[in-house]
Amino acid sequence: MAEKVILAYSGGLDTSCILKWLLEKGYEVICLMADVGQKEDFEAAKQKALKIGAKECVVKDVKDDFVRNYIWPGIQMGLIYEERYLLGTSLARPCISVALVEAARKYQAKYIAHGATGKGNDQVRFELCAYALMPEIKIIAPWRDDEFCQQFQGRLDLIEYAKLHNIPVTAKPSTPWSTDANILHISYESGVLEDPNHIAPESLYEMTKDPLTQAPKESMRITITFEKGLPVKLNEKAQSPLEILEILNYVAGSYGIGRIDIVENRYVGLKSRGVYETPGGTVLFKAHQDLEVFCLDREVLRCKQYLRDRMADYVYNGFWFSPEANYVRQCLELSQANVNGQVTMELRPGYCIAVARQAATANALYNQELVSMDVHGGYVPRDASGFIAINSVRLREHVRAFGAYEVKK
Amino acid sequence: MAEKVILAYSGGLDTSCILKWLLEKGYEVICLMADVGQKEDFEAAKQKALKIGAKECVVKDVKDDFVRNYIWPGIQMGLIYEERYLLGTSLARPCISVALVEAARKYQAKYIAHGATGKGNDQVRFELCAYALMPEIKIIAPWRDDEFCQQFQGRLDLIEYAKLHNIPVTAKPSTPWSTDANILHISYESGVLEDPNHIAPESLYEMTKDPLTQAPKESMRITITFEKGLPVKLNEKAQSPLEILEILNYVAGSYGIGRIDIVENRYVGLKSRGVYETPGGTVLFKAHQDLEVFCLDREVLRCKQYLRDRMADYVYNGFWFSPEANYVRQCLELSQANVNGQVTMELRPGYCIAVARQAATANALYNQELVSMDVHGGYVPRDASGFIAINSVRLREHVRAFGAYEVKK
Amino acid sequence: MAEKVILAYSGGLDTSCILKWLLEKGYEVICLMADVGQKEDFEAAKQKALKIGAKECVVKDVKDDFVRNYIWPGIQMGLIYEERYLLGTSLARPCISVALVEAARKYQAKYIAHGATGKGNDQVRFELCAYALMPEIKIIAPWRDDEFCQQFQGRLDLIEYAKLHNIPVTAKPSTPWSTDANILHISYESGVLEDPNHIAPESLYEMTKDPLTQAPKESMRITITFEKGLPVKLNEKAQSPLEILEILNYVAGSYGIGRIDIVENRYVGLKSRGVYETPGGTVLFKAHQDLEVFCLDREVLRCKQYLRDRMADYVYNGFWFSPEANYVRQCLELSQANVNGQVTMELRPGYCIAVARQAATANALYNQELVSMDVHGGYVPRDASGFIAINSVRLREHVRAFGAYEVKK
Amino acid sequence: MAEKVILAYSGGLDTSCILKWLLEKGYEVICLMADVGQKEDFEAAKQKALKIGAKECVVKDVKDDFVRNYIWPGIQMGLIYEERYLLGTSLARPCISVALVEAARKYQAKYIAHGATGKGNDQVRFELCAYALMPEIKIIAPWRDDEFCQQFQGRLDLIEYAKLHNIPVTAKPSTPWSTDANILHISYESGVLEDPNHIAPESLYEMTKDPLTQAPKESMRITITFEKGLPVKLNEKAQSPLEILEILNYVAGSYGIGRIDIVENRYVGLKSRGVYETPGGTVLFKAHQDLEVFCLDREVLRCKQYLRDRMADYVYNGFWFSPEANYVRQCLELSQANVNGQVTMELRPGYCIAVARQAATANALYNQELVSMDVHGGYVPRDASGFIAINSVRLREHVRAFGAYEVKK
Repeated sequence: MAEKVILAYSGGLDTSCILKWLLEKGYEVICLMADVGQKEDFEAAKQKALKIGAKECVVKDVKDDFVRNYIWPGIQMGLIYEERYLLGTSLARPCISVALVEAARKYQAKYIAHGATGKGNDQVRFELCAYALMPEIKIIAPWRDDEFCQQFQGRLDLIEYAKLHNIPVTAKPSTPWSTDANILHISYESGVLEDPNHIAPESLYEMTKDPLTQAPKESMRITITFEKGLPVKLNEKAQSPLEILEILNYVAGSYGIGRIDIVENRYVGLKSRGVYETPGGTVLFKAHQDLEVFCLDREVLRCKQYLRDRMADYVYNGFWFSPEANYVRQCLELSQANVNGQVTMELRPGYCIAVARQAATANALYNQELVSMDVHGGYVPRDASGFIAINSVRLREHVRAFGAYEVKK
Repeated sequence: MAEKVILAYSGGLDTSCILKWLLEKGYEVICLMADVGQKEDFEAAKQKALKIGAKECVVKDVKDDFVRNYIWPGIQMGLIYEERYLLGTSLARPCISVALVEAARKYQAKYIAHGATGKGNDQVRFELCAYALMPEIKIIAPWRDDEFCQQFQGRLDLIEYAKLHNIPVTAKPSTPWSTDANILHISYESGVLEDPNHIAPESLYEMTKDPLTQAPKESMRITITFEKGLPVKLNEKAQSPLEILEILNYVAGSYGIGRIDIVENRYVGLKSRGVYETPGGTVLFKAHQDLEVFCLDREVLRCKQYLRDRMADYVYNGFWFSPEANYVRQCLELSQANVNGQVTMELRPGYCIAVARQAATANALYNQELVSMDVHGGYVPRDASGFIAINSVRLREHVRAFGAYEVKK
Repeated sequence: MAEKVILAYSGGLDTSCILKWLLEKGYEVICLMADVGQKEDFEAAKQKALKIGAKECVVKDVKDDFVRNYIWPGIQMGLIYEERYLLGTSLARPCISVALVEAARKYQAKYIAHGATGKGNDQVRFELCAYALMPEIKIIAPWRDDEFCQQFQGRLDLIEYAKLHNIPVTAKPSTPWSTDANILHISYESGVLEDPNHIAPESLYEMTKDPLTQAPKESMRITITFEKGLPVKLNEKAQSPLEILEILNYVAGSYGIGRIDIVENRYVGLKSRGVYETPGGTVLFKAHQDLEVFCLDREVLRCKQYLRDRMADYVYNGFWFSPEANYVRQCLELSQANVNGQVTMELRPGYCIAVARQAATANALYNQELVSMDVHGGYVPRDASGFIAINSVRLREHVRAFGAYEVKK
Repeated sequence: MAEKVILAYSGGLDTSCILKWLLEKGYEVICLMADVGQKEDFEAAKQKALKIGAKECVVKDVKDDFVRNYIWPGIQMGLIYEERYLLGTSLARPCISVALVEAARKYQAKYIAHGATGKGNDQVRFELCAYALMPEIKIIAPWRDDEFCQQFQGRLDLIEYAKLHNIPVTAKPSTPWSTDANILHISYESGVLEDPNHIAPESLYEMTKDPLTQAPKESMRITITFEKGLPVKLNEKAQSPLEILEILNYVAGSYGIGRIDIVENRYVGLKSRGVYETPGGTVLFKAHQDLEVFCLDREVLRCKQYLRDRMADYVYNGFWFSPEANYVRQCLELSQANVNGQVTMELRPGYCIAVARQAATANALYNQELVSMDVHGGYVPRDASGFIAINSVRLREHVRAFGAYEVKK
């Protein structure tokens, strides 16, 4: 009796060939397509899989789960990788892995297969999540299989193999880069982008309009309301996470907001170049960041940011399901108890900034009276003399002991 | 014989009244105006000081020193406070303090006086720097003096006092906020900005044009070349730090680049709202950030960013001259040995992004061949299987010991 | 009508004189003696206070509160200052401050007074706690009062003043150092100890026997059981926190365990030398440390230790009641969910070490089978090849880019 | 022509069998024995290797190199793993790896082979160092080789194989644990120690005497002098690093100092139990720790300790030769510029403590006058009022905004 494999299927050339290759190896293959918001003709892809020989092809809409349980916590925690990347792909992987593992359980499959490359982060993310969720699972990663790699040394080999086995090859001309799309972002990498000095063409972007030529000429202000660091309202109207993200993607996308072009450090030790567009996520991230500094005590913020940086690395590296991510996530959630309020974001062609903010309740940490230049508000300026004097003790001691500070001129 | 005071003089209403008040107290006052790039009629201010009764009024051009020894290291170290503020005021304070202390030494003055308020950061910065550089110095901070504060309870008291003493009061109507300007930035705070939910008017900005209506319609690409993390060339042309910053301020200012509107945590325990414009500095910061991730090993970057965050707090809090800043600055400089290369920045109305980058030498850490999807480049994909498996040991052990990871649905 | 003051009273010379001085100033003084386990004749001290003129002298036994709510969390969090000091005084201060503030509320006193010096940490701890718990409280700190300091320039002035006002001066000859004692520790500082190169005499120690001459010749093994990082049993017998600490103090004290002699960094910027003995606390700290590494995932431990170090600074500096300590304490408690088990400590003259440990349940993170040299236990040694190879990618890239690593010879 | 292999040879059963096995595989084997201070009959081992068939057996004395370039920097940096382990084995591995790589270069060997197990840290350390030093090297790790592991499933298989091939099996009965010895420490693990609740017998220890029965009854005081954090003198007498360590090992060993019994987190994701004795190293570590806090500014110390903790992980995990270790080592060396002085250590049966310390020059950071209770020394106690008041601003603001701090009772 054939061993069962759950294949993370995309409908594209790679996973179609992998499906066939697995069938040739004697496996029974159940394809799983997780709908995380990518633009895809899922029905056509399903028919293709079945035609190639998949036992089943399950299309699972996990968009709501993805937004609610991965993207929203990501915004709440303030996750950003190496200060620029909003982890659009990284956050999707654990969500998809849950679907894969659930399928493996349901179909009593011993194996999960995926088409991620052997040089990338996604293989690590898929597999660490799978191992964490189902320690006994076995992984088939053809792009790390010597025989498979021998057989398929380039795209042409795949096309030839597809033709040979009557696998329909999409007529759509392939872009000179590869993409990963979901409701949070689209990433572009490889191909011509491998040269970090090659400028990405405007035509590459799919979620965002050209800020210079296609965006509205006027700016737009929107308010985003947060409860415990989670976005709950747009312009005062309560909406589901999925609705908020879809609206923001549309609006911010029309302004061309959220594009970055970076080189990043992969977990496997390589540097890679990626271009990303994250329209709605960028607005949410910046709004949250603004409200957080506004609402949190300074020292709590310092601790929280340390934990946030570690968490961003965990998520990027594939450790969403891990003891450390479990722990740090709880700590970060704790930090957000007082992040309640509203931020006014101004959207402009190509970017957005926070321009106003208010706390949910009158008595928040920002104290207009205390900071005012015109009233004391309980603050005794004279105290600052002692504050400064005591803070200078160490500094003066250093001079006494080791001589003057170096002043570069 | 009268005690001598070096007064950090601006020519404005506050320090003019302070000058007079010090004279009334019997001090001999030498005014010092440090030219850090603010737009000011220094000669008129000098005459005003002398007319009020200053023994001398020294105008010192420290722009080159400021850019070379404070701003450039700030860019090199990647300093940013609470992830958004480029420390435009914070970096100027130690530079000005050096000038004040030098004057105190030259004129054998026991006192330094300043007009910084008792609720702000600047008093701390001026005084910690002064104490560090000249431990025996004494500070006069009228805005923390009970008697002075009693006498001058508001702007009107100052104006009245000025009139009484024939101190010319500028005809220029005062803005409903206060500003601090130098060659790196202008900050706006207080007044109407004290309400964090009050949106700053477009008319406020002085260094940057309105991105929507006044900026060029076309984007512009420029290249910035760094050596050891320091900007050395613009569009391939070697320039002095001051020249580079002036050119970038002009160009980026014309695009309206570098505006932020934030609430920040002051060292004295208050939260305050500030609006900042830092046109050239923003371009330099983002270019450096891009090149740094491109050039540095991942783990070196992690350590460096930790130190960078501490340094940003030191600088913001006034500890530029301190054992810890001395130490960390050396460490951060060490980290930049390999940050050599060129970044192409695209300037657009209101913002800029890095779009391309190359290392100074062919053999840098980014390895196009290694990361390529099409060639192996010495990387053995099969190795990733073991890498992932060993990384999953801890994760699976946790499940064995404590049960399944929680999956929120 | 006289203003009321709550005076933190010890019965000693200083606070007795302060009591009289406050009375002379016209205050009505309620003395508060918090029994945190110091050896003291509280009744005699009380009578002395009343005789001097205190309106009341309240003796409050807070030992159970101190152990349960300050020392136990300290052990659970693993708090240690600058790697050596178990925070015996620092932990007592917030506990005593709570008693002072409660008394201020009960007696409707506007003031709290204390006899802590102006160079020390304790003034900061008392006052920050008091301000946090009762923001409107006013503090009287005579040792920072110019007039008081003028009047009392040394111990002799105090003795003279005491005699003048019929304040009984203890016959007990004063030690050439000062001490602070509670159930967790005794600290010794000042006087002859101010010379950091002066060796503390054996006669100084009060809680611990001389390990060389007075301790048992045989070692002793005890087991300590922890639940969520909190000590709950001694030698398998459930005991209250207070009982556990008292027993351990007695036993470890008889072995001379828990002495340290250090120079530490005070919050006010000075370095000071202290000698401490913490017999029971040392055993608990080391047992907890052993169990924690045994029970916690490696990466959780790393995060936890970072937070622990910050918390130790908060506590040392007086920020027990603060937003940051509140937050970090919750995070640290979360980390201890799995710190359940038993440690066997071996007590020996002068020191103790963990010699064995077991988890509360069979399925804990330590996996004897997995680590065994003799069985595989699910670990595939071959995987380590890939693990190492991928980890070496960055290292080899560095050589390619920047040349060979420096090898010092 | 046979491929050449450099085998890290110990003379024991494992590497002797590996030598034979490599020869059977057709390799030409050059054995390398690095003398890092382990007690070994190197000549006998060499003859054994040659008899088995090694082409050569090189015995290289790297003790001086080991102490000077690995142990001394470790002391200087204050390296300690998970707060207890002084990295005795971890520090030796890069030193030995340098010898292996030098031999590979000298003999033009393509391969390095070692007998480290597939579950341990040492395989990682040897190989990462080798890859870093000689990126093109190939590793043979028989204990990760499926065929080898199949053939040798336990100690008995090795013995049988040895007998079959006339490899002399040592008459010395094997201990029920395995050891790794060098001049810094001996580690014990595996066998009966795999049960973390099994108490290690007194007979296990080789470098240290039984503190209870064999150590001197009297304590002994020694002084250790440091320059830039490096030990340079014992009792005022300048000595080479090797001499200092040998003397301290002898003396501290006779007192039974430096034993620990811990569970630690291995890099490959396992927890393992180890018993270590590090007599001289423990004395040096504690002396250095004492002097460092004495000499360093508080905030420099905080930064330094963060870097130190990262460095300890790097070294434990095998990344001695890596970009990050290179970088952090330089930073840590920088921090030690002022760690100059002398510490008096008191050695007692089983432990040691610092009892006195002095800086190399009169003007060091510790300021006896400043900290004195009896004189002001330039410190103005009144300043502390303002210091505390300003520090309480945040704390009181938190109460105003979010209500009273929780007080557990």
